[in-house]
Amino acid sequence: MGEEEEVFEEALIPPENFNMVSDYIYRSSFPKKKHFSFLKKLGLKSVLTLILEDYPEQNMKFLEENKIKFLQFGIAGNKEPFVQIPENKISAALAAILDRRNHPMLIHCNKGKHRTGCLIGCMRKLQHWSYTSIFDEYRRFSHPKSRSMDQQFIELFDTRQVWELVDKEHMPKWPTLGDPPI
Amino acid sequence: MGEEEEVFEEALIPPENFNMVSDYIYRSSFPKKKHFSFLKKLGLKSVLTLILEDYPEQNMKFLEENKIKFLQFGIAGNKEPFVQIPENKISAALAAILDRRNHPMLIHCNKGKHRTGCLIGCMRKLQHWSYTSIFDEYRRFSHPKSRSMDQQFIELFDTRQVWELVDKEHMPKWPTLGDPPI
Repeated sequence: MGEEEEVFEEALIPPENFNMVSDYIYRSSFPKKKHFSFLKKLGLKSVLTLILEDYPEQNMKFLEENKIKFLQFGIAGNKEPFVQIPENKISAALAAILDRRNHPMLIHCNKGKHRTGCLIGCMRKLQHWSYTSIFDEYRRFSHPKSRSMDQQFIELFDTRQVWELVDKEHMPKWPTLGDPPI
Repeated sequence: MGEEEEVFEEALIPPENFNMVSDYIYRSSFPKKKHFSFLKKLGLKSVLTLILEDYPEQNMKFLEENKIKFLQFGIAGNKEPFVQIPENKISAALAAILDRRNHPMLIHCNKGKHRTGCLIGCMRKLQHWSYTSIFDEYRRFSHPKSRSMDQQFIELFDTRQVWELVDKEHMPKWPTLGDPPI
Protein backbone atom coordinates (compact mmCIF):
# COMPACT_ATOMS: atom_id res chain seq x y z
CA MET A 1 0.00 0.00 0.00
CA GLY A 2 1.40 3.34 -1.10
CA GLU A 3 -0.33 5.08 1.78
CA GLU A 4 1.36 2.91 4.38
CA GLU A 5 4.82 3.51 2.94
CA GLU A 6 4.27 7.22 2.94
CA VAL A 7 3.49 7.18 6.65
CA PHE A 8 6.81 5.46 7.30
CA GLU A 9 8.80 7.91 5.23
CA GLU A 10 7.16 10.76 7.07
CA ALA A 11 8.19 9.54 10.55
CA LEU A 12 8.69 12.50 12.82
CA ILE A 13 11.87 12.72 14.85
CA PRO A 14 11.59 14.48 18.21
CA PRO A 15 14.92 15.79 19.55
CA GLU A 16 16.62 13.42 22.03
CA ASN A 17 15.35 13.60 25.58
CA PHE A 18 12.14 15.19 24.30
CA ASN A 19 9.27 15.31 26.77
CA MET A 20 6.08 17.13 27.56
CA VAL A 21 6.60 18.86 30.90
CA SER A 22 3.26 20.53 31.43
CA ASP A 23 0.49 21.96 29.27
CA TYR A 24 2.23 23.59 26.30
CA ILE A 25 5.71 23.20 27.79
CA TYR A 26 8.20 20.82 26.19
CA ARG A 27 11.84 20.00 26.96
CA SER A 28 14.58 18.43 24.87
CA SER A 29 18.24 18.35 23.84
CA PHE A 30 19.55 20.79 21.23
CA PRO A 31 17.25 20.54 18.19
CA LYS A 32 18.92 19.89 14.83
CA LYS A 33 17.61 20.18 11.32
CA LYS A 34 16.20 16.66 11.25
CA HIS A 35 13.92 17.55 14.17
CA PHE A 36 12.40 20.65 12.59
CA SER A 37 9.45 18.89 10.93
CA PHE A 38 8.46 17.43 14.29
CA LEU A 39 8.87 20.75 16.09
CA LYS A 40 6.83 22.51 13.44
CA LYS A 41 3.85 20.34 14.39
CA LEU A 42 3.96 21.64 17.96
CA GLY A 43 3.02 25.14 16.82
CA LEU A 44 5.64 26.71 19.10
CA LYS A 45 5.35 30.34 20.09
CA SER A 46 8.78 30.43 21.74
CA VAL A 47 12.02 28.53 22.23
CA LEU A 48 13.86 29.06 25.50
CA THR A 49 17.50 28.05 25.40
CA LEU A 50 19.95 27.85 28.29
CA ILE A 51 23.10 27.66 26.17
CA LEU A 52 25.68 30.42 26.42
CA GLU A 53 26.85 30.31 22.81
CA ASP A 54 25.43 32.05 19.75
CA TYR A 55 22.45 30.21 18.30
CA PRO A 56 23.27 28.44 15.01
CA GLU A 57 22.11 30.20 11.86
CA GLN A 58 20.06 27.22 10.72
CA ASN A 59 18.09 27.19 13.97
CA MET A 60 17.63 30.94 13.90
CA LYS A 61 16.24 30.67 10.39
CA PHE A 62 13.77 28.00 11.53
CA LEU A 63 12.56 30.28 14.29
CA GLU A 64 12.15 33.24 11.95
CA GLU A 65 10.31 31.24 9.33
CA ASN A 66 7.86 29.96 11.91
CA LYS A 67 7.53 33.22 13.82
CA ILE A 68 8.89 31.65 16.99
CA LYS A 69 10.15 33.98 19.70
CA PHE A 70 13.74 33.35 20.79
CA LEU A 71 14.49 33.53 24.51
CA GLN A 72 18.06 33.02 25.68
CA PHE A 73 19.03 32.67 29.31
CA GLY A 74 22.60 31.54 28.83
CA ILE A 75 24.21 29.66 31.69
CA ALA A 76 27.29 27.45 31.93
CA GLY A 77 26.97 23.80 32.91
CA ASN A 78 27.11 23.14 36.67
CA LYS A 79 30.43 21.28 36.62
CA GLU A 80 31.78 21.20 40.13
CA PRO A 81 33.69 22.73 41.69
CA PHE A 82 34.17 25.64 39.31
CA VAL A 83 30.85 26.86 38.10
CA GLN A 84 27.61 27.73 39.80
CA ILE A 85 24.23 28.14 38.20
CA PRO A 86 23.16 31.78 38.52
CA GLU A 87 19.85 31.86 40.40
CA ASN A 88 18.75 35.06 38.71
CA LYS A 89 18.92 33.48 35.25
CA ILE A 90 16.83 30.53 36.41
CA SER A 91 14.30 32.89 37.99
CA ALA A 92 14.01 34.96 34.82
CA ALA A 93 13.62 31.81 32.75
CA LEU A 94 10.87 30.57 35.09
CA ALA A 95 9.03 33.88 34.78
CA ALA A 96 9.13 33.46 30.99
CA ILE A 97 7.80 29.90 31.34
CA LEU A 98 4.96 31.16 33.53
CA ASP A 99 3.79 33.56 30.82
CA ARG A 100 1.04 32.05 28.69
CA ARG A 101 1.90 34.40 25.84
CA ASN A 102 5.05 32.31 25.27
CA HIS A 103 3.15 29.02 24.99
CA PRO A 104 3.62 26.51 23.43
CA MET A 105 7.30 26.68 24.44
CA LEU A 106 10.29 24.40 23.92
CA ILE A 107 13.03 24.51 26.58
CA HIS A 108 16.46 23.13 25.72
CA CYS A 109 20.19 23.23 26.47
CA ASN A 110 22.71 20.90 24.83
CA LYS A 111 21.80 17.45 26.13
CA GLY A 112 18.55 18.40 27.84
CA LYS A 113 19.96 16.82 30.99
CA HIS A 114 21.53 19.20 33.47
CA ARG A 115 20.67 22.84 32.86
CA THR A 116 17.22 21.95 31.56
CA GLY A 117 16.88 19.46 34.41
CA CYS A 118 17.68 22.15 37.00
CA LEU A 119 15.19 24.56 35.46
CA ILE A 120 12.40 21.96 35.32
CA GLY A 121 13.23 20.88 38.87
CA CYS A 122 12.72 24.46 40.07
CA MET A 123 9.51 24.65 38.07
CA ARG A 124 8.27 21.51 39.86
CA LYS A 125 8.87 23.29 43.16
CA LEU A 126 6.49 25.99 41.97
CA GLN A 127 4.07 23.18 41.17
CA HIS A 128 4.43 21.87 44.74
CA TRP A 129 5.92 18.52 43.82
CA SER A 130 7.66 16.54 46.58
CA TYR A 131 11.47 16.36 46.36
CA THR A 132 11.30 12.61 45.82
CA SER A 133 9.32 13.17 42.63
CA ILE A 134 11.41 16.14 41.52
CA PHE A 135 14.70 14.27 41.85
CA ASP A 136 13.21 11.15 40.33
CA GLU A 137 12.33 13.14 37.21
CA TYR A 138 15.69 14.95 37.21
CA ARG A 139 17.53 11.62 37.27
CA ARG A 140 15.33 10.04 34.61
CA PHE A 141 16.40 12.66 32.10
CA SER A 142 20.02 13.11 33.20
CA HIS A 143 20.79 9.39 33.38
CA PRO A 144 23.53 8.12 33.45
CA LYS A 145 25.11 11.47 34.29
CA SER A 146 23.04 12.77 37.19
CA ARG A 147 24.82 15.36 39.31
CA SER A 148 24.22 15.82 43.00
CA MET A 149 25.24 19.49 42.63
CA ASP A 150 22.22 19.99 40.38
CA GLN A 151 19.89 18.34 42.86
CA GLN A 152 21.35 20.48 45.61
CA PHE A 153 20.75 23.56 43.51
CA ILE A 154 17.10 22.61 43.09
CA GLU A 155 16.69 21.94 46.80
CA LEU A 156 18.23 25.25 47.83
CA PHE A 157 16.48 27.35 45.17
CA ASP A 158 14.11 29.86 46.76
CA THR A 159 10.98 30.10 44.63
CA ARG A 160 9.92 33.40 46.17
CA GLN A 161 12.33 35.27 43.91
CA VAL A 162 10.42 33.95 40.90
CA TRP A 163 7.03 35.23 41.96
CA GLU A 164 8.39 38.77 42.05
CA LEU A 165 9.06 38.52 38.31
CA VAL A 166 5.84 36.80 37.26
CA ASP A 167 3.15 38.74 35.42
CA LYS A 168 0.09 37.45 37.29
CA GLU A 169 -2.26 38.41 34.49
CA HIS A 170 -0.71 35.98 32.05
CA MET A 171 -0.05 32.96 34.25
CA PRO A 172 -1.01 29.54 32.92
CA LYS A 173 -3.82 27.63 34.57
CA TRP A 174 -1.84 24.57 35.64
CA PRO A 175 -3.68 22.40 38.14
CA THR A 176 -0.94 22.20 40.79
CA LEU A 177 0.66 25.60 40.32
CA GLY A 178 -1.55 27.32 42.84
CA ASP A 179 -1.59 30.98 43.62
CA PRO A 180 1.53 33.07 44.11
CA PRO A 181 2.29 33.73 47.80
CA ILE A 182 0.97 37.04 49.02
CA MET B 1 6.74 32.07 58.14
CA GLY B 2 3.59 30.03 58.69
CA GLU B 3 2.74 30.33 55.01
CA GLU B 4 6.03 28.77 53.92
CA GLU B 5 5.67 25.86 56.30
CA GLU B 6 2.21 25.18 55.03
CA VAL B 7 3.46 24.92 51.46
CA PHE B 8 5.97 22.30 52.55
CA GLU B 9 3.39 20.26 54.40
CA GLU B 10 1.17 20.38 51.36
CA ALA B 11 3.80 18.99 48.97
CA LEU B 12 2.09 16.95 46.30
CA ILE B 13 3.35 13.45 45.61
CA PRO B 14 2.91 12.23 42.05
CA PRO B 15 2.98 8.43 41.70
CA GLU B 16 6.40 7.03 40.72
CA ASN B 17 7.23 7.19 37.04
CA PHE B 18 4.59 9.89 36.60
CA ASN B 19 4.72 11.77 33.33
CA MET B 20 2.62 13.83 30.98
CA VAL B 21 2.40 11.89 27.74
CA SER B 22 0.33 14.21 25.60
CA ASP B 23 -2.40 16.81 26.14
CA TYR B 24 -4.54 15.48 28.98
CA ILE B 25 -2.86 12.07 29.03
CA TYR B 26 -0.71 11.04 32.00
CA ARG B 27 1.13 7.82 32.84
CA SER B 28 2.43 6.43 36.13
CA SER B 29 2.97 3.44 38.37
CA PHE B 30 0.13 2.12 40.55
CA PRO B 31 -1.29 5.10 42.50
CA LYS B 32 -1.54 4.69 46.26
CA LYS B 33 -3.38 6.71 48.85
CA LYS B 34 -0.53 9.20 49.35
CA HIS B 35 -0.80 10.18 45.68
CA PHE B 36 -4.51 10.94 45.71
CA SER B 37 -4.21 14.63 46.58
CA PHE B 38 -1.89 15.12 43.61
CA LEU B 39 -4.15 13.16 41.28
CA LYS B 40 -7.17 15.11 42.43
CA LYS B 41 -5.53 18.27 41.07
CA LEU B 42 -5.40 16.79 37.59
CA GLY B 43 -9.18 16.77 37.32
CA LEU B 44 -9.19 13.27 35.83
CA LYS B 45 -12.18 12.05 33.86
CA SER B 46 -10.87 8.50 33.63
CA VAL B 47 -8.24 6.06 34.86
CA LEU B 48 -7.12 3.35 32.47
CA THR B 49 -5.41 0.42 34.14
CA LEU B 50 -3.62 -2.48 32.51
CA ILE B 51 -3.49 -4.70 35.58
CA LEU B 52 -5.33 -8.02 35.57
CA GLU B 53 -6.25 -8.08 39.24
CA ASP B 54 -9.26 -6.56 41.00
CA TYR B 55 -8.81 -2.88 41.69
CA PRO B 56 -8.21 -2.13 45.41
CA GLU B 57 -11.20 -0.85 47.34
CA GLN B 58 -9.39 2.32 48.40
CA ASN B 59 -8.63 3.23 44.79
CA MET B 60 -12.15 2.41 43.68
CA LYS B 61 -13.51 4.69 46.38
CA PHE B 62 -11.23 7.52 45.21
CA LEU B 63 -12.57 7.11 41.67
CA GLU B 64 -16.19 7.11 42.83
CA GLU B 65 -15.74 10.14 45.05
CA ASN B 66 -14.22 12.10 42.20
CA LYS B 67 -16.55 10.79 39.49
CA ILE B 68 -13.66 9.25 37.57
CA LYS B 69 -14.52 6.60 35.01
CA PHE B 70 -12.72 3.28 35.49
CA LEU B 71 -11.37 1.56 32.40
CA GLN B 72 -9.67 -1.81 32.78
CA PHE B 73 -7.83 -3.54 29.97
CA GLY B 74 -6.15 -6.26 32.01
CA ILE B 75 -3.07 -7.86 30.53
CA ALA B 76 -0.29 -9.96 32.03
CA GLY B 77 3.30 -8.70 32.01
CA ASN B 78 5.30 -9.60 28.88
CA LYS B 79 7.72 -11.94 30.63
CA GLU B 80 9.39 -14.05 27.99
CA PRO B 81 9.01 -16.68 26.90
CA PHE B 82 5.65 -17.48 28.44
CA VAL B 83 3.33 -14.57 27.96
CA GLN B 84 2.40 -12.43 25.03
CA ILE B 85 0.68 -9.09 25.14
CA PRO B 86 -2.74 -9.43 23.49
CA GLU B 87 -2.88 -6.98 20.58
CA ASN B 88 -6.65 -6.60 20.84
CA LYS B 89 -6.43 -5.31 24.42
CA ILE B 90 -3.83 -2.73 23.42
CA SER B 91 -5.96 -1.65 20.45
CA ALA B 92 -9.05 -1.26 22.62
CA ALA B 93 -7.04 0.73 25.17
CA LEU B 94 -5.70 3.00 22.41
CA ALA B 95 -9.21 3.63 21.14
CA ALA B 96 -10.19 4.69 24.67
CA ILE B 97 -7.14 7.00 24.83
CA LEU B 98 -8.13 8.55 21.51
CA ASP B 99 -11.55 9.52 22.87
CA ARG B 100 -11.59 13.09 24.18
CA ARG B 101 -14.55 12.29 26.41
CA ASN B 102 -12.16 10.27 28.61
CA HIS B 103 -9.71 13.18 29.07
CA PRO B 104 -7.90 14.01 31.29
CA MET B 105 -6.84 10.36 31.68
CA LEU B 106 -4.29 8.56 33.82
CA ILE B 107 -2.82 5.34 32.42
CA HIS B 108 -1.08 2.93 34.78
CA CYS B 109 -0.06 -0.66 35.44
CA ASN B 110 2.04 -1.73 38.45
CA LYS B 111 5.42 -0.10 37.85
CA GLY B 112 4.44 2.07 34.91
CA LYS B 113 7.33 0.49 33.03
CA HIS B 114 6.43 -2.41 30.75
CA ARG B 115 2.72 -2.68 30.02
CA THR B 116 2.26 1.08 30.16
CA GLY B 117 5.46 1.47 28.15
CA CYS B 118 4.15 -0.84 25.42
CA LEU B 119 0.85 1.01 25.26
CA ILE B 120 2.51 4.42 25.06
CA GLY B 121 4.96 3.11 22.47
CA CYS B 122 2.05 2.04 20.26
CA MET B 123 0.42 5.42 20.85
CA ARG B 124 3.62 7.11 19.62
CA LYS B 125 3.35 5.09 16.41
CA LEU B 126 -0.07 6.64 15.89
CA GLN B 127 1.63 10.00 16.48
CA HIS B 128 4.19 9.16 13.76
CA TRP B 129 7.23 9.17 16.03
CA SER B 130 10.42 7.55 14.73
CA TYR B 131 11.37 4.22 16.35
CA THR B 132 14.52 5.77 17.78
CA SER B 133 12.40 8.22 19.76
CA ILE B 134 9.80 5.63 20.71
CA PHE B 135 12.37 3.20 22.10
CA ASP B 136 14.28 6.00 23.76
CA GLU B 137 11.16 6.94 25.68
CA TYR B 138 10.29 3.31 26.44
CA ARG B 139 13.74 2.75 27.93
CA ARG B 140 13.70 5.97 29.92
CA PHE B 141 10.68 4.79 31.87
CA SER B 142 11.50 1.07 32.06
CA HIS B 143 15.11 1.60 33.16
CA PRO B 144 16.92 -0.48 34.43
CA LYS B 145 14.54 -3.27 33.36
CA SER B 146 13.94 -2.60 29.69
CA ARG B 147 12.77 -5.64 27.74
CA SER B 148 13.55 -6.25 24.11
CA MET B 149 10.33 -8.27 23.84
CA ASP B 150 8.37 -5.12 24.61
CA GLN B 151 10.22 -3.13 22.00
CA GLN B 152 9.62 -5.88 19.50
CA PHE B 153 5.93 -5.83 20.34
CA ILE B 154 5.82 -2.10 19.66
CA GLU B 155 7.67 -2.49 16.37
CA LEU B 156 5.39 -5.25 15.11
CA PHE B 157 2.14 -3.69 16.29
CA ASP B 158 -0.08 -2.82 13.35
CA THR B 159 -1.80 0.51 14.06
CA ARG B 160 -4.48 -0.06 11.42
CA GLN B 161 -6.43 -2.26 13.83
CA VAL B 162 -6.77 0.72 16.17
CA TRP B 163 -8.29 3.07 13.64
CA GLU B 164 -11.15 0.64 13.12
CA LEU B 165 -12.14 1.11 16.77
CA VAL B 166 -11.70 4.88 17.00
CA ASP B 167 -14.72 7.15 17.14
CA LYS B 168 -13.57 9.85 14.69
CA GLU B 169 -15.98 12.39 16.08
CA HIS B 170 -14.32 12.46 19.48
CA MET B 171 -10.65 12.27 18.56
CA PRO B 172 -8.26 14.66 20.33
CA LYS B 173 -6.59 17.41 18.33
CA TRP B 174 -2.97 16.34 18.90
CA PRO B 175 -0.53 18.05 16.59
CA THR B 176 1.23 14.96 15.26
CA LEU B 177 -1.65 12.49 15.36
CA GLY B 178 -2.76 13.19 11.83
CA ASP B 179 -5.83 11.81 10.15
CA PRO B 180 -6.84 8.18 10.29
CA PRO B 181 -5.94 6.29 7.09
CA ILE B 182 -8.84 6.03 4.66
